[in-house]
Amino acid sequence: MPETTKFTLEEHLIPRTWYNLAADLPSPLPPVLHPGTKQPVGPADLAPLFPESLILQEVSQEREIEIPDAVRDVYKLWRPTPLYRARRLEKALDTPAKIYYKYEGVSPAGSHKPNTAVAQAYYNKEAGVKRIVTETGAGQWGSSLAFAGALFGLEVNVYMVRVSYNQKPYRRALMETWGARCVPSPSTETAAGRAILEQRPDHPGSLGIAISEAVELAVQREDTKYALGSVLNHVLLHQTVIGAEALLQMEMAGDYPDVLVGCTGGGSNFAGMAFPYLGAQLRGGKKVRVVAVEPAACPSLTRGRYAYDFGDTAHLTPLTKMHTLGSTFTPPGFHAGGLRYHGMAPMVSHVKELGLIDAVAYHQTKCFEAGVLFARTEGILAAPEANHAIRGAVDEALAAKEEGKPRTILFNLCGHGHFDMQAYIDYNSGKLQDQHYDENELAMALAGLPPV
Amino acid sequence: MPETTKFTLEEHLIPRTWYNLAADLPSPLPPVLHPGTKQPVGPADLAPLFPESLILQEVSQEREIEIPDAVRDVYKLWRPTPLYRARRLEKALDTPAKIYYKYEGVSPAGSHKPNTAVAQAYYNKEAGVKRIVTETGAGQWGSSLAFAGALFGLEVNVYMVRVSYNQKPYRRALMETWGARCVPSPSTETAAGRAILEQRPDHPGSLGIAISEAVELAVQREDTKYALGSVLNHVLLHQTVIGAEALLQMEMAGDYPDVLVGCTGGGSNFAGMAFPYLGAQLRGGKKVRVVAVEPAACPSLTRGRYAYDFGDTAHLTPLTKMHTLGSTFTPPGFHAGGLRYHGMAPMVSHVKELGLIDAVAYHQTKCFEAGVLFARTEGILAAPEANHAIRGAVDEALAAKEEGKPRTILFNLCGHGHFDMQAYIDYNSGKLQDQHYDENELAMALAGLPPV
Repeated sequence: MPETTKFTLEEHLIPRTWYNLAADLPSPLPPVLHPGTKQPVGPADLAPLFPESLILQEVSQEREIEIPDAVRDVYKLWRPTPLYRARRLEKALDTPAKIYYKYEGVSPAGSHKPNTAVAQAYYNKEAGVKRIVTETGAGQWGSSLAFAGALFGLEVNVYMVRVSYNQKPYRRALMETWGARCVPSPSTETAAGRAILEQRPDHPGSLGIAISEAVELAVQREDTKYALGSVLNHVLLHQTVIGAEALLQMEMAGDYPDVLVGCTGGGSNFAGMAFPYLGAQLRGGKKVRVVAVEPAACPSLTRGRYAYDFGDTAHLTPLTKMHTLGSTFTPPGFHAGGLRYHGMAPMVSHVKELGLIDAVAYHQTKCFEAGVLFARTEGILAAPEANHAIRGAVDEALAAKEEGKPRTILFNLCGHGHFDMQAYIDYNSGKLQDQHYDENELAMALAGLPPV
Repeated sequence: MPETTKFTLEEHLIPRTWYNLAADLPSPLPPVLHPGTKQPVGPADLAPLFPESLILQEVSQEREIEIPDAVRDVYKLWRPTPLYRARRLEKALDTPAKIYYKYEGVSPAGSHKPNTAVAQAYYNKEAGVKRIVTETGAGQWGSSLAFAGALFGLEVNVYMVRVSYNQKPYRRALMETWGARCVPSPSTETAAGRAILEQRPDHPGSLGIAISEAVELAVQREDTKYALGSVLNHVLLHQTVIGAEALLQMEMAGDYPDVLVGCTGGGSNFAGMAFPYLGAQLRGGKKVRVVAVEPAACPSLTRGRYAYDFGDTAHLTPLTKMHTLGSTFTPPGFHAGGLRYHGMAPMVSHVKELGLIDAVAYHQTKCFEAGVLFARTEGILAAPEANHAIRGAVDEALAAKEEGKPRTILFNLCGHGHFDMQAYIDYNSGKLQDQHYDENELAMALAGLPPV
């Protein structure tokens, strides 16, 4: 049996700063626009939603942003996370490639999401906020914010996409055990939710709708702010602890990736791993091919348009330039709920436009096939989202075999699948089907993009 | 907010030997008896069930037994496990006590069980075995053996207690994803199972019955052996990596426990933490009070008799002297399925008789109350079994507060509760009830103990 190779950082090497890619970009990110005036938004426009400290991070051009001691202290509960060489998987694939993976599933919530949840809870608490309102897809974000809220003494309300709420009652129980309130979205608690339910009472929900609901409630109360689990610059920033640790661990391994692979929904786990490497490259370091793997049923990077769009369905958010399928697009109910978002992080979209990253799309059965192989060789049962990254890494390794050329692959295994077992039951029993969106619906959603 | 205090061992400090308490006991363990002859069994009697290497460990008097490189290598996937000081819990309890916990939930299967599953899979593979048959309660053991079997290329068949099979379909899916076959017990696949179903077709099952089924099948085939997840000496032995690491970590903390707390079903996670400390004490080291916490609905240590009994219901196993509720006793279907066993590890029973450990029993709602407090302060959502240990530690801390005297408490948090969310749903909604066994059934089961 091939040996286990784990690269463990000492605790004092948990990063002391987050890395901000904006400082190294060859061209700046297009501005965020006010939906009414179509003029760039200022900090005051975002103040009802976020504390000032997070707004400043959102627009910062500083390369390194200090991680507060209280945040770094909570990170210690599970960080530094391990980085492994997947020798058993390499052997099963009979590939000349070397495959490494960083494992973020060791956090109490089981994914990378607490990296930003803890930071956001901290800054909100510092600003005197009493309650955070948010949306969640598969529940990884909602449970992470519930966890962070419990530790910092904040009330947390979560609007959970209805199809996931029904598919994943245990994720909801996790949030409730940490003391959060969890509501299926669309709900009757907001004008946005009620309007959608009126048109379609059995609406499965989407991240876009859940965001509308959370935003609507946050702006109504002084003591309440909104938190987003992906997409925004400050969220991607907080996730860069992943890549910063990976840089050190790959150095321990005496290796450097030729190819980086990550799965993309909103883009945060992908960016968390990729941006520190892209920054190193932009500052004159080694070029690395970066592959974003997205679900074929919700393919914003490979089928979306790079355009200004709303982040939510009810059009309460500012307009950001991103790869989007249109804010009215409702992806089918496939299992990787965390990847069911119509848009892509503006910063990820920007680097895609700059040619710094590639994107591929896979249907879910191929991803589960790779995930089961991974579980049986490496021992970790991954989340459906993470199975997309595994698929991407496996295909890179198989391409290396085909070409008879070695290469070094590093991917981010963003979470475990302990709360996604129904998906595995479906896959194991042959019932899991690939999901396809309606081409007409996509065309209509794209046609409905706001004229900017 | 109180600071996070984690004590992390470097990887090279993963123990190189298991610790065998038998070497330091003031009086030897009573012999295991053949059920027919009532004479001590020899290695040949156990050969149909276990490979020779494990039989030798079962009867070894050596203090240190070397961990094979291939086993230690797989341990690296998740070991050394972290040891934390629970400062946030201490603060919530306003106690002068210091509370430490060792966390075994970081393994791919989510509990301490892989410590022995990996060892058993290795020795069976070495002996040329093709298939391992086992029983499981809540599924922690079955999934751990499925994980270990996948890594070593062994076929794994698991007989799962029916009440848990129904309560925990996701644990079953976990086993199946790792490639194991999982059957609800009692089943129609064995004579033992069929006999029980004839009497009571809706029988909820028990670990004792599932053991009978697995043993029956193992002895029928040359290429098939049996594996047990707790109770036996060699299983407890493999778990001592927990306590061996904890000794080093407490040394890093500059502290030594006054009180050790663990939950007990078969006794293996408890022994894994406690035995290295008891050994140190027996060799002249500091005395530590050791508290075994068991479920009040299946209280072998506090209500059982110390007597020779069968390990299973169909009386296929040898007779061992242990604290037992009687092998025909069927515990009610409470949620800590891993603690639903009529007997107690002979070695744990022996140290109880020697006055080296104490035992207390709690009903499940009090344990969940402590578990939810723990989740909201320390961030980890524990398994129902582990909630018993948390309850025990919390009550020790509250006693310290009452007495106004500090003390150092160390407990073993043997696993996470990600596969036990239905129990949390029941608790959060107020539906969780304490379960009570039938006093008449217990009296009858005790009266039916074999005359030895």
